[in-house]
Amino acid sequence: MSIIDKLKWRSAVKKFEISKKLSVAQLDDLLSAIQLAPSSLGLQTYKIIVVADAATRQKLRAAGYNQPQITDASHLIVFASETNIDSAYGKNYVDLVAKTRGVERETLAGFEQMVLGSINSQTDEQKIAASHKQAYIALGVLLTAAAEFGIDAGPMEGFDAAKFDEILGLKEKGLTTSVIAAVGFRADDDVYSKMIKVRRPKNELFIHI
Amino acid sequence: MSIIDKLKWRSAVKKFEISKKLSVAQLDDLLSAIQLAPSSLGLQTYKIIVVADAATRQKLRAAGYNQPQITDASHLIVFASETNIDSAYGKNYVDLVAKTRGVERETLAGFEQMVLGSINSQTDEQKIAASHKQAYIALGVLLTAAAEFGIDAGPMEGFDAAKFDEILGLKEKGLTTSVIAAVGFRADDDVYSKMIKVRRPKNELFIHI
Repeated sequence: MSIIDKLKWRSAVKKFEISKKLSVAQLDDLLSAIQLAPSSLGLQTYKIIVVADAATRQKLRAAGYNQPQITDASHLIVFASETNIDSAYGKNYVDLVAKTRGVERETLAGFEQMVLGSINSQTDEQKIAASHKQAYIALGVLLTAAAEFGIDAGPMEGFDAAKFDEILGLKEKGLTTSVIAAVGFRADDDVYSKMIKVRRPKNELFIHI
Repeated sequence: MSIIDKLKWRSAVKKFEISKKLSVAQLDDLLSAIQLAPSSLGLQTYKIIVVADAATRQKLRAAGYNQPQITDASHLIVFASETNIDSAYGKNYVDLVAKTRGVERETLAGFEQMVLGSINSQTDEQKIAASHKQAYIALGVLLTAAAEFGIDAGPMEGFDAAKFDEILGLKEKGLTTSVIAAVGFRADDDVYSKMIKVRRPKNELFIHI
């Protein structure tokens, strides 16, 4: 199957097979895809909380309009934006670039100036809004990679972000919830994945210039 | 190569091979991936402008900090959010669902209520901000699918959105630019794709609960 066929197969599964869990290797593949997602200037201004714990997920479900996939999928993936993106954060990232590429820190002075200039030109609110968007890129990468692996992944925006932050202790970690996705395997009787996929036709969705 | 290896191969290419264009089939595959990207309630509250025209791209490049990939890649993909997401837009979508699935319009009354409720509970500003985020999911899907096909795709946020809207005549179409990506093939002497990819280590990026 091509990636296009895999994307046709994928579905916003609501009913997961509770007994079917991702293997350690499968989960690690999904996290590798998220890790490899591109982000603005490479900053990855988010963290990803991988929730397996049943009691935590029960609480999250109550803060997520009681959507069953929050507790029933193999794992719940919570994308959370950093809330303290400051000069120290930028410098720490430039340190990582220098270390990863084995280059002298000084050779990155121009890049550092660009990173810090970008960080310091935005208000906290703008930075968090921009981070949320970066998290959505990572979400898109996760959903596509999961489809390629034949793993179900259902994104969700219907949840109380403030309550999620509280349940997961994100405020103390300098994080705030962006978007979530349930990953695992569809139940045989999941209704949504049996429905015909609805998409706008190409001649409506695309404008060629 | 697994999708993980493909994602390691992908790069924010800055220098594209000008003479190497996507075939009609390759471009169509990328657009299929974008078309299949999931979105909130399935609404796909965006359009995608596929820019091949050289003169238009020259103008866009001037509005995009003179980034060479805007003119030199095979195509420039502009994701643009809808600006008039109203009840008519929602009803039109429910029409599409009924038609695609071959079901009576009346059986979708509950779903329609949910769609219209969602649309009417948000300000225009909130709706556009939410649409931008949906466009970023589609961007993530595009970048991953392109990597799977061995096609280069470089996302860009450094551009003047108001000027892009003007050059592309988006305001009259009820659209506003979200984010852009250049697609095509890296030049042999592209510097960025030869650099070691920098990503936060998994023990920093992920929190397991």
